[in-house]
Amino acid sequence: MMGGAIAMAARRTGAAARIIGVAHNQNTVLQAKQSGVVDEATLDLRAGVSDADLVVLCVPVRTILDAAATLIPACREGTVVTDISSTKTVIVREIEALIARTKAKVFFVGSHPLAGSERRGFDAAESVRLDSATCVLTPTPHSDNEAYHKVDEFWRTLGLKTVRLTPDEHDGVLARSSHLPHLFAAALMNLQTSRSLEICGPGLRDMTRLAASNPTMWTDIAEQNSVELAKGIRELGQEALRLAEDVELLAGHGAPQAEAARERVFRFLADAKQRHEKRFEEPPETEKVADNPDQTTTPEESPPLLR
Amino acid sequence: MMGGAIAMAARRTGAAARIIGVAHNQNTVLQAKQSGVVDEATLDLRAGVSDADLVVLCVPVRTILDAAATLIPACREGTVVTDISSTKTVIVREIEALIARTKAKVFFVGSHPLAGSERRGFDAAESVRLDSATCVLTPTPHSDNEAYHKVDEFWRTLGLKTVRLTPDEHDGVLARSSHLPHLFAAALMNLQTSRSLEICGPGLRDMTRLAASNPTMWTDIAEQNSVELAKGIRELGQEALRLAEDVELLAGHGAPQAEAARERVFRFLADAKQRHEKRFEEPPETEKVADNPDQTTTPEESPPLLR
Repeated sequence: MMGGAIAMAARRTGAAARIIGVAHNQNTVLQAKQSGVVDEATLDLRAGVSDADLVVLCVPVRTILDAAATLIPACREGTVVTDISSTKTVIVREIEALIARTKAKVFFVGSHPLAGSERRGFDAAESVRLDSATCVLTPTPHSDNEAYHKVDEFWRTLGLKTVRLTPDEHDGVLARSSHLPHLFAAALMNLQTSRSLEICGPGLRDMTRLAASNPTMWTDIAEQNSVELAKGIRELGQEALRLAEDVELLAGHGAPQAEAARERVFRFLADAKQRHEKRFEEPPETEKVADNPDQTTTPEESPPLLR
Repeated sequence: MMGGAIAMAARRTGAAARIIGVAHNQNTVLQAKQSGVVDEATLDLRAGVSDADLVVLCVPVRTILDAAATLIPACREGTVVTDISSTKTVIVREIEALIARTKAKVFFVGSHPLAGSERRGFDAAESVRLDSATCVLTPTPHSDNEAYHKVDEFWRTLGLKTVRLTPDEHDGVLARSSHLPHLFAAALMNLQTSRSLEICGPGLRDMTRLAASNPTMWTDIAEQNSVELAKGIRELGQEALRLAEDVELLAGHGAPQAEAARERVFRFLADAKQRHEKRFEEPPETEKVADNPDQTTTPEESPPLLR
């Protein structure tokens, strides 16, 4: 999916004069050739990369180090290699060690374009929106500066906005913004009963879309980012237990404890809404019009709920 | 938003011979009239309902009982009243008590169509997809059977699939499938740092869409369904703390404890994926083709991750 999407974008933007696809099976080789997205396609990783200026490694976390060990010795001198993996600390460290160990004359700079979906395979390539996505680049003190700029320019030519972080910073940030949401989509799914799954609106479907992701791939990602991810999950779990207490207190409507809990629950939701708006949306026109009597009230001003 | 959406659907399907809209402000009255969705529109709740066969009460949980107290004495004998509220136990009990107390000759049956969005106001009405949504009806032993069938037929004419639950059953089910996702969208939003908000993919946006909902409205819903909702939040919190322990153990790659944790994390994600597929999707073609070497491996078979 991601290899196909990147090839399509490179073709469309003219980022590459010649594109060679390497696939895992003959079916994908034929599909890629027939689609015209690649100039050539092959099952042979070593042959595929032998004349490349730039190699973009799009394989799961589980197999990327094996793939790197196969392809790096097959590259000609000066080839720049990047990847698209969701975790960076372990992968960047291991690929840099591999290059040092084999004395290969290739340059590696880690990348992570924040695009994709829970789908997979060449058929899903067109569903990926690379245009205007963010791509994190994770150079280290060992990285070649020219190679870094080449990789940076590649992604920007494809329409992505690039950001530079250390591998550790990347894993800390992505634990919260990507890995945690994936695990919580699964948790929310597993908390449903057969009846609540039957009787649900569009919200649950949207919130559990990521639960359709490949479980092996995401177990691998969790393993590679275990410390930061465990920290985020624990924070969310503790926040949930605090929130459960407050929600329980709401039942004692009118009591001072209940009113204080109500203020905290309201503040929690209002903060989230404000952060969401600031990041993801301009407030729509309808929000600005006082179309509804409760729209401008705060818990302090608003009339007590009838019970 | 919901009143507008229901009026549009009633118009389109011919479910009502004549539609009278009651709005909170003159702007919406004019919009509704100009759009042709209603035959008449007014700010006067009592006048609006005085000749109705069926009243669909689309006001927030916070104000619905006040609205019911105003409109019920203004209805003519035999009018059927329903609502669209996200909580049912308190509202159904209170409206039934109000009817008994005032000896009004109207019939109330609670409804909850599982459609809508985080938006609001008449402008957002067209974004609501009622067609093929589920609508829960919550009759009680006090409900009139003919009124129940009238409300049921109304929603089915609009294209909704109807389900019958007691008010308590409704609140238990919706705590999991709707109220919990709303609060967790907010929790996930509040857990982000300014950097993780900047560096995120489409997954976080989808998973936090519900955080844009109205905080007063959702505090009210949490208050009315506090017991069931607190139970669900606590379960999810405890599950998160367990999951955090397992994810932390993954770091000890190769150790028996780590392997056991890996199996649990994989199982957790695989279960969620299976439940998601069963409920929300047919597996796409690409899932059936072994396009990728890790696709068919299980944790037991797969090679150890290089570290």
